[in-house]
Amino acid sequence: MGEVKVLDLKKTILQDNDADADKLREELAKEGTFYVNVMSSPGSGKTTTIKKTLEMLSEKLRAGVVEADIDSDVDAITIQEAGFPAIQAHTGGMCHLDADMSRQALRALGTENLDLVILENVGNLVCPAEFDTGAHRNVVILSVPEGDDKPLKYPLVFETSQAVLINKIDAAPVFDFDMEQVAKYILDRNPNAKIFPVSAVTGEGMDAWCEWLYAEVKAGR
Amino acid sequence: MGEVKVLDLKKTILQDNDADADKLREELAKEGTFYVNVMSSPGSGKTTTIKKTLEMLSEKLRAGVVEADIDSDVDAITIQEAGFPAIQAHTGGMCHLDADMSRQALRALGTENLDLVILENVGNLVCPAEFDTGAHRNVVILSVPEGDDKPLKYPLVFETSQAVLINKIDAAPVFDFDMEQVAKYILDRNPNAKIFPVSAVTGEGMDAWCEWLYAEVKAGR
Repeated sequence: MGEVKVLDLKKTILQDNDADADKLREELAKEGTFYVNVMSSPGSGKTTTIKKTLEMLSEKLRAGVVEADIDSDVDAITIQEAGFPAIQAHTGGMCHLDADMSRQALRALGTENLDLVILENVGNLVCPAEFDTGAHRNVVILSVPEGDDKPLKYPLVFETSQAVLINKIDAAPVFDFDMEQVAKYILDRNPNAKIFPVSAVTGEGMDAWCEWLYAEVKAGR
Repeated sequence: MGEVKVLDLKKTILQDNDADADKLREELAKEGTFYVNVMSSPGSGKTTTIKKTLEMLSEKLRAGVVEADIDSDVDAITIQEAGFPAIQAHTGGMCHLDADMSRQALRALGTENLDLVILENVGNLVCPAEFDTGAHRNVVILSVPEGDDKPLKYPLVFETSQAVLINKIDAAPVFDFDMEQVAKYILDRNPNAKIFPVSAVTGEGMDAWCEWLYAEVKAGR
């Protein structure tokens, strides 16, 4: 396995995370870098989805990834081995990133030549939704094996995300997952959410998601 | 759908959670109630596994469930409809329960006539592992679709659990999950961990897990 840059994030001293997040968003917009925060449970396929997305957009966009984790560097290695710049940020036990931690990781990655940076947040449906990372868009991935009731149980992450990817649809035959029901639960909480059923492994549905993302990047820069 | 008792947990004022957890553990032991804390990601099958476990042990043990969640009461309804006492505890946005919150929920449930109480902790592999709930045993459920690398990424929950259930083994043919590899990752971090590959849906492997749990309850009371 290759080596990756690992950054131990420092604790944030700033009090007003929302103001700091707004500032980071503006800085990045000025630079021409679009920043997307991807949240999900552990094991819903964030890394695979991000890798596939970057591969599909590689002719149109220069993109990099911030991999945030409590521990381990396996995800950054995966992304780097696929040919994209990546940094592994360790949160020191914390279950989320705030705007300042986000900025530390972006600086260590280097954003000058990147049109798009995707943050793979810590695998967790609770804490990451509570902290604005300074991203231009939030995306949540829910995978079929997790069940269609998750928007009931973890409403905030679905409310704060502009796009919801329903991943692992190739496994749908094995699980009792109601796509109409989950869409209703999501849209009840967030009527503007874009919902993309996908399989990052087979590629099914990935075109629609990548088109949406590309349009957002283009509009945002 | 039926109605269940919903408890809004109050914030804890106590400073020393570890001491409070020890106290709760002793109180419950004196009463003859064994208390088990079940942790996992969202959607790994906690509720289904707990329900099946209680059904399999129903002739031997009187058992009840504390369902902890950010929001919703669907899990407590499921358990109650299966014929077991249950209470839904809402954490008010918090991603874990500490010993005092745990005690509030146990009091509201009523433990006098129960040999076993299972706490279904908030779906999260990070925060719940950091707080001693006062349980006699910790159990973590990892489901096959989440991937075999989770012990690398969320080591603490695997270190603090006496038993690890690998759930949804019926879905193994669809996923690239290495049972030997995951066992190695777990045992590297926690050499004494008992590992039970199960499917709570088909019942496969559930006997071994239920036997272990029953032996622990008997030894602990």
